[in-house]
Amino acid sequence: MPKEKNIRELTPWQKRLHEIIFEADTPSGKAFDIVLLIAIILSVLVVMIESVPEYGEAYKTTFLVIEWSFTILFTIEYALRIMTIRRPFTYILSFYGIVDLLSIIPTYLGLFISGTHTLMVIRTLRLLRVFRILKLGKYLRDAQTLALAIKNSKSKIIVFLGSVMAIVIILGTVMYLIESPESGFTSIPRSIYWAIVTLTTVGYGDIYPSSDLGQFIAAIVMILGYGIIAVPTGIVTNELIVSGTTDRKHKSTQVCQSCAKEGHDPDAIFCKYCGEKLNP
Amino acid sequence: MPKEKNIRELTPWQKRLHEIIFEADTPSGKAFDIVLLIAIILSVLVVMIESVPEYGEAYKTTFLVIEWSFTILFTIEYALRIMTIRRPFTYILSFYGIVDLLSIIPTYLGLFISGTHTLMVIRTLRLLRVFRILKLGKYLRDAQTLALAIKNSKSKIIVFLGSVMAIVIILGTVMYLIESPESGFTSIPRSIYWAIVTLTTVGYGDIYPSSDLGQFIAAIVMILGYGIIAVPTGIVTNELIVSGTTDRKHKSTQVCQSCAKEGHDPDAIFCKYCGEKLNP
Amino acid sequence: MPKEKNIRELTPWQKRLHEIIFEADTPSGKAFDIVLLIAIILSVLVVMIESVPEYGEAYKTTFLVIEWSFTILFTIEYALRIMTIRRPFTYILSFYGIVDLLSIIPTYLGLFISGTHTLMVIRTLRLLRVFRILKLGKYLRDAQTLALAIKNSKSKIIVFLGSVMAIVIILGTVMYLIESPESGFTSIPRSIYWAIVTLTTVGYGDIYPSSDLGQFIAAIVMILGYGIIAVPTGIVTNELIVSGTTDRKHKSTQVCQSCAKEGHDPDAIFCKYCGEKLNP
Amino acid sequence: MPKEKNIRELTPWQKRLHEIIFEADTPSGKAFDIVLLIAIILSVLVVMIESVPEYGEAYKTTFLVIEWSFTILFTIEYALRIMTIRRPFTYILSFYGIVDLLSIIPTYLGLFISGTHTLMVIRTLRLLRVFRILKLGKYLRDAQTLALAIKNSKSKIIVFLGSVMAIVIILGTVMYLIESPESGFTSIPRSIYWAIVTLTTVGYGDIYPSSDLGQFIAAIVMILGYGIIAVPTGIVTNELIVSGTTDRKHKSTQVCQSCAKEGHDPDAIFCKYCGEKLNP
Repeated sequence: MPKEKNIRELTPWQKRLHEIIFEADTPSGKAFDIVLLIAIILSVLVVMIESVPEYGEAYKTTFLVIEWSFTILFTIEYALRIMTIRRPFTYILSFYGIVDLLSIIPTYLGLFISGTHTLMVIRTLRLLRVFRILKLGKYLRDAQTLALAIKNSKSKIIVFLGSVMAIVIILGTVMYLIESPESGFTSIPRSIYWAIVTLTTVGYGDIYPSSDLGQFIAAIVMILGYGIIAVPTGIVTNELIVSGTTDRKHKSTQVCQSCAKEGHDPDAIFCKYCGEKLNP
Repeated sequence: MPKEKNIRELTPWQKRLHEIIFEADTPSGKAFDIVLLIAIILSVLVVMIESVPEYGEAYKTTFLVIEWSFTILFTIEYALRIMTIRRPFTYILSFYGIVDLLSIIPTYLGLFISGTHTLMVIRTLRLLRVFRILKLGKYLRDAQTLALAIKNSKSKIIVFLGSVMAIVIILGTVMYLIESPESGFTSIPRSIYWAIVTLTTVGYGDIYPSSDLGQFIAAIVMILGYGIIAVPTGIVTNELIVSGTTDRKHKSTQVCQSCAKEGHDPDAIFCKYCGEKLNP
Repeated sequence: MPKEKNIRELTPWQKRLHEIIFEADTPSGKAFDIVLLIAIILSVLVVMIESVPEYGEAYKTTFLVIEWSFTILFTIEYALRIMTIRRPFTYILSFYGIVDLLSIIPTYLGLFISGTHTLMVIRTLRLLRVFRILKLGKYLRDAQTLALAIKNSKSKIIVFLGSVMAIVIILGTVMYLIESPESGFTSIPRSIYWAIVTLTTVGYGDIYPSSDLGQFIAAIVMILGYGIIAVPTGIVTNELIVSGTTDRKHKSTQVCQSCAKEGHDPDAIFCKYCGEKLNP
Repeated sequence: MPKEKNIRELTPWQKRLHEIIFEADTPSGKAFDIVLLIAIILSVLVVMIESVPEYGEAYKTTFLVIEWSFTILFTIEYALRIMTIRRPFTYILSFYGIVDLLSIIPTYLGLFISGTHTLMVIRTLRLLRVFRILKLGKYLRDAQTLALAIKNSKSKIIVFLGSVMAIVIILGTVMYLIESPESGFTSIPRSIYWAIVTLTTVGYGDIYPSSDLGQFIAAIVMILGYGIIAVPTGIVTNELIVSGTTDRKHKSTQVCQSCAKEGHDPDAIFCKYCGEKLNP
């Protein structure tokens, strides 16, 4: 194996740490993952609770201490990750590398810049780190099946979303003409927002038609939206069934030496068409 | 059969009662179940009506009498269940045993403690007892099919719910930054609550975005939610179809005369296990 | 064919009318159906428009004249139906016979009783008569397929609805305890109403939780409702697929005279297993 | 090929332009499509932004200049389309021909008529032109699959929508009788509007029942709507699966050597049409 740039040899000590930090096969690796998972979830919960006005003000110092503890913990983890990987730069520039960095930087920046409210909130991005841990777990296969089903139906979904966008823009424009600004249809973009709220059956009630004609068109939009939801559902269901069928239908690839017929069950010992013994 | 602890022999009289109370095969057993079913539903209805301020105040005494009648009835039933079962402690500690106890205790506690408003309401848990009765009925098979379909897709559903949680937390955080507290986005947890209300297309309208950017992101969340609903639907539908297919796939009922194995394809001429010609 | 009670012989003139009124095979029968369809829809539209305060007051006499015209027309039709059918009493007591009567009676009763507002509105039941006409049309087969799919999954749907009812009652009770009456949770029935509004993702916004714990539980209800909708969808889709598969898979019922094997395609001339000519 | 009326011969120069404007196979044809796509989307965005009061007033002149630029561009394109096609009148009277005309006319009409607010908005119909461009693209096949699935289930969907309409009208009438006008149920059409808003789970909250009986019926409507949504989903999913299955169902590719017929089952040994032994 030729030595590439940016790839370094790991000492046995680094290899050991790499196994703990990046893999989940060993008991210590599994323990590390669980501790990290809990730390991430706790740190995100802290960000969430801190944002509640009553708590954020009252326990300001407590939150500061907790936040710095997590930041130092994640900083050590980040440093260890860089130290124990063979291609540090590939890691740093990877999706998870950037997420890891983003989850520690805001706290440090808060030292220099005031008004880091926004920065603080970026820390919820830490949540994305959870997926790396789950990726190693037993849910990987199911996540892949779902992701594959969605990926396979991607172009159908784009066609669907494109049609929905066109419907929504034209309907929004029509409602802008029909309804008065007093009902909330003050501009075409806002009317389109209403059309989306209605078509997706969310229906906040912040904007709603008040004229007879407007209500009539709204009723059509609703029934349309009610029917249209069948399309993505049909697409994804179909994909899941197709991929599932392919999975399950593992006929053996054996060909009968006597009658050359295929399609034998995996547990068949003799050809079901001519009775000849199959190759084991 | 060795005698275990806590298992006692039942007298013929107890056996007769056991058949009536725990089984539904005999006419008297069926009659008991129907009477109990009606009693449970009536007693839950009484709890519900009692909570309506107008009625609760006006007919206080009537409700008290009705409530005590039901409590005494259920107490007798509870006592009989304990008396006619061979393992009383297993029953008492079982799910239905606890539910049975919880449905009579609140009324008795009301004698000693005042302000038992909360206790009174626990009585709606009686409703859970309905399921024991239905379990014996003809809907068992269909309930099992549905439960199996949901159980089989459990890990897919966990992956799905996990992704929804992550989306909702990140979207809630983003909206907390964009929208002003005046629109109701006062903290991250409340913004997450909004994201769930929107993504699931419930859309109360108690919190909704008022800024242009907020409405734009909300529109994306809605379309996302509109599409995402396809995923659990696809999962459950697929499971129902798969389990249904397995049920229906009629392998031939032929049994090989030589090796006595079953499971041959309908068009098989020779036994696929031993090569013996199958009975035509 | 023995003569039964209440069955009379029809004169040729009656037979001719019967063909026009009850059937849709002849051109005049088809024309009659179309005229009737238009008359029904127009008369329902009149009832609807009459209920709008502005129009109802202003054109009171016009509506009275129109209403009496339709009533006389439908009365003649009803009389003709009775006169041209061989079992008049069977018709009068049938579902459509009662609907036919209900659609003319309110106007006549209005002559004797004042304050017949409610009676007037019953006239929208005329709409049900549309289904008789459609029943003869080309949509019958598709309606039957849908009805069959729903009928086949009836017991699954009952199990599903039963579970939803139980969930909704228990959740409503819990929310009644947690939330204050100021938020609209004034009684258990009203809290159950809220739970249904939320679980079905309707979300009016007339009642919504305002406490933190209430919003947390509401969020769980929403995600639950979002997932639960997959179940009826899965059930119906599965039924439609199963019934569709059975429809399409019309293998011929022929048995090869030589090898006694079945499962031949409808267009097969020779047995695909032994080459013997099949019975035409 | 006989010469028809309205078909003219194209000069080589016209043929070259035709290839660029109407087709997307050549690099210049593709470039033309992309430029046109961007121009359409930008011009629709301009119409949308212009409708926002703040921007529309402030940058009135800018919008006028932009609008005229797009109009002149699309006019040139429209003229070129007419000049380079062999049947100009067929194009002019076709769907896209009319859309092309409608997207340029409003601006010109604005010169002669004042108060052309409505006319201006018609310009969003330009969006429909996007579909012509996409039609040539790679999404055509998926759009066709979806369109076919919807077309095949058309009569089922009509039956479904008809039933929904009947349910909604009868429910609306019932609620009109039960609920007071103060809750918003002022007329039957408005009550039907409410029924649609509820059945489709949109739930604005502008009209909602306030009486106990009204809320009880509303709860039934919601659960009904929750279940009914399964029907269109089932229909479309079923169609997608059926059309997908037909695609994939691999009949053996064998051709009978004797009668040259195809379509044999994969496990066929003899030709099912002539009884000749098939090639193993």
